[in-house]
Amino acid sequence: MPELAYLNGEIMPIDEARVPIEDRGYQFADAVYEYLASYNGRLFALEAHLDRLEHSLGALAFPALDRNHIRNAILTLHKRAAIARSGIYLQISRGVAPRNHPFPVQAAPQIVMTVRQLHPTPPEYLRDGIRAITVTDSRWSRCDIKTVQLLPNVMAKQRALEAGAQDAIFVSPDGVVREGTASNLFIHAGGRLHTHPLTPAILAGITRAVLIDSCRKQAITVEERFFDLHELMAADEVVLTGTVTEVLPVTQIDGQAIGNGRPGPAAEMLRTQLEALAAGP
Amino acid sequence: MPELAYLNGEIMPIDEARVPIEDRGYQFADAVYEYLASYNGRLFALEAHLDRLEHSLGALAFPALDRNHIRNAILTLHKRAAIARSGIYLQISRGVAPRNHPFPVQAAPQIVMTVRQLHPTPPEYLRDGIRAITVTDSRWSRCDIKTVQLLPNVMAKQRALEAGAQDAIFVSPDGVVREGTASNLFIHAGGRLHTHPLTPAILAGITRAVLIDSCRKQAITVEERFFDLHELMAADEVVLTGTVTEVLPVTQIDGQAIGNGRPGPAAEMLRTQLEALAAGP
Repeated sequence: MPELAYLNGEIMPIDEARVPIEDRGYQFADAVYEYLASYNGRLFALEAHLDRLEHSLGALAFPALDRNHIRNAILTLHKRAAIARSGIYLQISRGVAPRNHPFPVQAAPQIVMTVRQLHPTPPEYLRDGIRAITVTDSRWSRCDIKTVQLLPNVMAKQRALEAGAQDAIFVSPDGVVREGTASNLFIHAGGRLHTHPLTPAILAGITRAVLIDSCRKQAITVEERFFDLHELMAADEVVLTGTVTEVLPVTQIDGQAIGNGRPGPAAEMLRTQLEALAAGP
Repeated sequence: MPELAYLNGEIMPIDEARVPIEDRGYQFADAVYEYLASYNGRLFALEAHLDRLEHSLGALAFPALDRNHIRNAILTLHKRAAIARSGIYLQISRGVAPRNHPFPVQAAPQIVMTVRQLHPTPPEYLRDGIRAITVTDSRWSRCDIKTVQLLPNVMAKQRALEAGAQDAIFVSPDGVVREGTASNLFIHAGGRLHTHPLTPAILAGITRAVLIDSCRKQAITVEERFFDLHELMAADEVVLTGTVTEVLPVTQIDGQAIGNGRPGPAAEMLRTQLEALAAGP
């Protein structure tokens, strides 16, 4: 069960994979990525990740890439690693060229991946929920494009850890609750689930989408609408969702208990749904 | 006069310099940079660039770096290249570690440089001025930190080229004129120079600073204040300044002539000042 890298068609140990310093991903953050997880050796929502990848590439006017080629590369690396519960990181940059802002005339997109063991969520996070802080959203205005411009996420996550919390929640300067540093956010309030609508201000999370779809199939209402910091703090439950996060209850925000301060039934319901989906048909 | 790269102490041809794919500069844009120019074999404003580098590193809580070490590395590479008119690109990332948002516990900042011939501004740009377009500023809220999160700059510059212009000017969603994609912006209006004040919304350009300082020494007023798109379009002159840009008149914006549509005396005055400073004492 080796952890491996993929570099433009070649598979190798991760610490041997290197890119030129003039890769535009390195000098301009001119690169997009996806992160996929496998359950019991099966990749979850592969086509949805490929759809989103195509959205990101298109939004940045990358040259068209062969979806079959990328899918095959992912599947090949995944198979070679043979890790039952793995995380595949896939990054595509615009290419390598002498540093200059405009798109290079001749440059082939660079495709880089890693596959690693994906460690389970600490059981106490599920049992007790996590603590979060809120931070003012300082990110650029196109968070729907999954680029490697993750420095605000890095800084927010680090600030959360230094504050004794596990994650940070981005709130717009005028108070709209956006999402976590690597997850979407749902609240349960007034007997319903609510989450930020799909706009350029948040990532269209795959886990978010499959959970909304699954809820609606069971006639569980999910309202996609804006809500503010006040509604967040007053919610009965707050839940983060994402490929790595899965479904995680947030029981304390900025030092204040959410609801009764314990994980609640909405988080449990969402987690059960995700587990059923991950187990496959 | 070779073009060279520097990689953590080693000097080599640029196309041989490679970094691990898990360099945080590549996966998180967790890296800062500087760009220095030499005139007649002498680096311009080296200490000012080192000051700004320290500001960037400090703002992102990078571990303290030895300023003398970095200065010596720059000077060594510059000397080795022996290019009279060179551009030195210096990038420092937080280090290499398995992908995870928080700061890695054990990771040494990676120092990467290139030195290249710096090509002169096309003479027609100075003679006729350049055309620019305005774009809504989509960047993150800490543009005072010189990070590699340059994708909005890349997209704006590319849009300018595709529109038959040479550069783009960032304007905030509420109409405040910020700066160019790799330059600061001055207008000349009402007999005075005006430029955006130093806030987190723009980069504290070295060329901007030395020109303001030089003007003030000669009792030429420069007002650092906000101005909007309307004032920009109504200005007598618009000028971009930067290490590579130097002093560049903008004579057309969004298809409309600025002033009389020709480079004016303010641009010429600023250019003369910069040339005098670059020539040295």
